[in-house]
Amino acid sequence: MHISELDTPVVIIDLDRLEANIARLQSYLDAHQILNRPHIKTHKIPQIAQMQLQAGATGITCQKLGEAEVMAQAGTKDIFIPYNLMGDKKLERLAILMKMAQISVTADSEYTARGLARAAQQASNELTVLVEFDTGSGRCGVQNPQQAADLACVIADMPSLKFGGLMTYPANQNTALFIQETKTLLEKRGIPVERVSLGGTPKMWEAHTHTGVTEYRAGTYVYGDRATLKAGAMTVNQCAMHIVSTVISRPNAERGILDAGSKTLSSDLLGLTGHGLILEYPEAQIHQLSEEHGHVDFSGCINRPQIGERVTIIPNHCCVVSNLFNQMVGVRGDQVEVVWDVAARGLLT
Amino acid sequence: MHISELDTPVVIIDLDRLEANIARLQSYLDAHQILNRPHIKTHKIPQIAQMQLQAGATGITCQKLGEAEVMAQAGTKDIFIPYNLMGDKKLERLAILMKMAQISVTADSEYTARGLARAAQQASNELTVLVEFDTGSGRCGVQNPQQAADLACVIADMPSLKFGGLMTYPANQNTALFIQETKTLLEKRGIPVERVSLGGTPKMWEAHTHTGVTEYRAGTYVYGDRATLKAGAMTVNQCAMHIVSTVISRPNAERGILDAGSKTLSSDLLGLTGHGLILEYPEAQIHQLSEEHGHVDFSGCINRPQIGERVTIIPNHCCVVSNLFNQMVGVRGDQVEVVWDVAARGLLT
Repeated sequence: MHISELDTPVVIIDLDRLEANIARLQSYLDAHQILNRPHIKTHKIPQIAQMQLQAGATGITCQKLGEAEVMAQAGTKDIFIPYNLMGDKKLERLAILMKMAQISVTADSEYTARGLARAAQQASNELTVLVEFDTGSGRCGVQNPQQAADLACVIADMPSLKFGGLMTYPANQNTALFIQETKTLLEKRGIPVERVSLGGTPKMWEAHTHTGVTEYRAGTYVYGDRATLKAGAMTVNQCAMHIVSTVISRPNAERGILDAGSKTLSSDLLGLTGHGLILEYPEAQIHQLSEEHGHVDFSGCINRPQIGERVTIIPNHCCVVSNLFNQMVGVRGDQVEVVWDVAARGLLT
Repeated sequence: MHISELDTPVVIIDLDRLEANIARLQSYLDAHQILNRPHIKTHKIPQIAQMQLQAGATGITCQKLGEAEVMAQAGTKDIFIPYNLMGDKKLERLAILMKMAQISVTADSEYTARGLARAAQQASNELTVLVEFDTGSGRCGVQNPQQAADLACVIADMPSLKFGGLMTYPANQNTALFIQETKTLLEKRGIPVERVSLGGTPKMWEAHTHTGVTEYRAGTYVYGDRATLKAGAMTVNQCAMHIVSTVISRPNAERGILDAGSKTLSSDLLGLTGHGLILEYPEAQIHQLSEEHGHVDFSGCINRPQIGERVTIIPNHCCVVSNLFNQMVGVRGDQVEVVWDVAARGLLT
């Protein structure tokens, strides 16, 4: 099937680019002897996880228990969930998941660690827990090396838990020092730091500059998006995800309306201006979204589209687009090669 | 089941409030002899559409063909799709849909109208087409009464199409004049304007002030959200949709992290500051979202939550939350009464 036969809006994945993106990061991390543990939140598709593993990834990263369940059921054997899992329901599911795959998780509090210990006891198995630390994102994570070392000791002392190392997102200029100071504190207590897991696509090519890193988690690199372009980590011609949309209205000379709104592109701005890059009209601005309409200002374009014309969009943030579509269409050139269910889409717990 | 047994994040719908919201708008529109045609994009649940119809709605509004297909399969007999439907695939589906229910649609261009005429011919049935006009949203719609009248004539002249009237969103202070001028132009040509369809929850209580309105489309009114509160159209105690979320981290004295991020709340701001109202901590600011984390500043709160505590959130925009969840949990007081599949979720074409 030719891509022009697909109804819009539709997400197409350029398979040549996808394969090249997977190979490129793997080669880089291999060259620096850093393990690759890609984050599947970007694609949520077991078949793409399989491609990443076959290319050399050591395992995968999932942000939700539900994503990990889908991936384990699809055969993935090594899954890292860098999230504070808590509550009886999730801990029961974690105990079951531990029987399906080798699971590691994170904690940034004793509260989280205690729950994880209960799950591990229920699974009659040892659970590897890394300490999450924060050197800039202002999200979860212990705030200084002393807290990291103290929590590592708490974890190491708990029955059924193994202290697995350190994790942060994203890595930045403060990360290496934090790691070194924590390691020094833990060496005095005789506790080794086996894994140091950093992540983030925008600065993935700097992974080797963070002294102490042992594994890297990138997600967006498989597809690329406008935020990745802005970060300079990928080029337009490497972007593998495109949204094909139809111009459904041209109310006046400047304005065009697309059938891709916030239900297609999401409202994520990530510091960018506008809601996507239209490849055929790069000067156009997708300046506003309603759920089913994208409002485009074509005034900067010499040529402007007709009603019914199709356009090709690089979204601001590919991960959230994956969460909005039930299926992705893999294409080779202009031919459809595969349709994937986004099997781990919409899993909120 | 008590709501405390639900895993988080979860969307709960207060059924008492939902029923009251449905009844309140119906009473108002009945009192003003305006037909009620609620927009189901807000809930995407056939059972709630059924409640709206049983309360007196004349039919429903869907924004996507796929939504209309779900609702028609569930037995809804009168469906309005105020969207420029185009392209062979959609027009074929429209022809089939016309055999399942009484369908009306909109057009704002001759291009759209021509496609609709082909679908109607394929269905061997007459299709009612309203002209969409724009008096302020800057989205789709003809720009002035002359264009509206000209397009109405084009539609009226096409085989298999019936000119059905006028549609806009949202109604504003310019709407009544536009309607009147278009009607005057069309009277001269002997073309009646049977339906005038306006919409929008924020100003729903002004529906009767737009001279000429015959039907009203509101969606958000069933649940309410922070944008509706800001508009003054509903009160906090009328809001029927809440997201229950767990505090999964308290990295420092001020900051808390929720398990509700942009995959739960969406990134829609709608001109608001912050990403939701936490009922237990109304002074708190959900100042940033990543996909699976809500970043909360509790510095304005005297009491602050513990890790593991649950909070209750009114989202900025309830419609997009519906699109992110596969199920909604209907509750009566603190007891779960029903779990609904969001059957028309994620239908992009």
